[in-house]
Amino acid sequence: MIIEKDDKLILLTNDDGLYAGGLKTLLEVMEEFGKVILISTIESMSGMSQALTVKTPLRVKLLGENEKHRIYACNGTPTDSVKLAINQLVERTPDWVVSGINHGSNASVSVLYSGTMAAAIEGCLYGISSVGFSLNNFSPTADFSICKKYIRIVMKKLASEPLPAGICLNVNIPASKKSEIKGIKICRQSKGNWREEFEKRKDPMGKTYYWLTGIFQNHEPEAIDTDEWAITNNFVSIVPVTVDMTAHWYIDKLKVRFKK
Amino acid sequence: MIIEKDDKLILLTNDDGLYAGGLKTLLEVMEEFGKVILISTIESMSGMSQALTVKTPLRVKLLGENEKHRIYACNGTPTDSVKLAINQLVERTPDWVVSGINHGSNASVSVLYSGTMAAAIEGCLYGISSVGFSLNNFSPTADFSICKKYIRIVMKKLASEPLPAGICLNVNIPASKKSEIKGIKICRQSKGNWREEFEKRKDPMGKTYYWLTGIFQNHEPEAIDTDEWAITNNFVSIVPVTVDMTAHWYIDKLKVRFKK
Repeated sequence: MIIEKDDKLILLTNDDGLYAGGLKTLLEVMEEFGKVILISTIESMSGMSQALTVKTPLRVKLLGENEKHRIYACNGTPTDSVKLAINQLVERTPDWVVSGINHGSNASVSVLYSGTMAAAIEGCLYGISSVGFSLNNFSPTADFSICKKYIRIVMKKLASEPLPAGICLNVNIPASKKSEIKGIKICRQSKGNWREEFEKRKDPMGKTYYWLTGIFQNHEPEAIDTDEWAITNNFVSIVPVTVDMTAHWYIDKLKVRFKK
Repeated sequence: MIIEKDDKLILLTNDDGLYAGGLKTLLEVMEEFGKVILISTIESMSGMSQALTVKTPLRVKLLGENEKHRIYACNGTPTDSVKLAINQLVERTPDWVVSGINHGSNASVSVLYSGTMAAAIEGCLYGISSVGFSLNNFSPTADFSICKKYIRIVMKKLASEPLPAGICLNVNIPASKKSEIKGIKICRQSKGNWREEFEKRKDPMGKTYYWLTGIFQNHEPEAIDTDEWAITNNFVSIVPVTVDMTAHWYIDKLKVRFKK
């Protein structure tokens, strides 16, 4: 793959592994926009958040290359993959970091646990316009083709003007029929949390173990400006995500509490 | 351990493992405030962010108990540990989730990668007043006793009034002599990022591997209201951290961009 000066260079990753349907669809759309460096793990790395690999070495393998893309397998987390690609594998700083399409929603607080969004946040920390895409459908046979139209709209906006420093986009697409999707809504992250229902089992040796399972609880189902509301009402939600976790509104109140 | 109705119940964890000096110091201080349920991994889980374990089962072992504390080892991440403890191990919802003392700073964007802060954020998602403590010293022989005074100050504030919903505290203590620490500063998260310097090596089979190493870059060294400024100028920094990652200020601007 030859990367010309005018080519957009796109770093593509995900957290569902190299053979995920969502990654294939996102690669197809990204090739319409520029040259793609794809890096992913062989297996799924769901729920890895922004985890880093510090105790074991990272390994990368070039799997293939054609005129439009180059594909690497990496044994690290999505965040490791972005860091490694930017520092060791790409010819120049990518124009975009794009992650997904995730199998399942990353709306509300799922942004905190998501490996897909962590990759976009990592790109953002490198000053690169970055987006994570997710389809609200966990099925391995989900139809990702309905996402293509909205991915194109988002990327055309980024092509005309990059995102501000410290902000990336969390795009969630509802699992609706193409004809049912009503359009795009710019949203805020819904308040909510995952309530766990651990499954307690005994192994063949009689020892107890637990499987982590959870049910999402939306704390504000009535609010119509949230990502949760949008995707459950057939809209594509876009939340601008900041890497600044400071609760700015509470700083002055906290100062008062510590002066007492 | 008997937990009386009036006892504060404290869930304590960290990401440096059960035998970390920082955890020992934090346990000592927490026992002054109430009854402690401690859960941690045997080995270090640094840099695990808010990662969840979904592909392997979780296991827990009761290691010991006395009148003041109960200690569990867990094979999961700090976030798994908090979820498992709240749902399966504690008698009632803890009053506080306290994490640390981390060996090394979690100021600036390190909050995104930190397992210590992820545990506090997880407690916060359960509606519990939660704090992560870190000492800006990576040495295994670091003197954590200088932290005690400031931990007591912070927890006394929380004892008199819980934190608002969706906010936890990121407390970073400078690696200075006790007499040099000038006090507490309420701060915002400094803008910055980790620039990687991957070490590329060959294994005995001649195959390439990489070690992830990084150097923190503070993007605003002149700003005096940040956590980075505070800890490099001998102040204890406290940042109120929100679980809401929405860039609220950018929502209206993004709406305009998508209307064009």
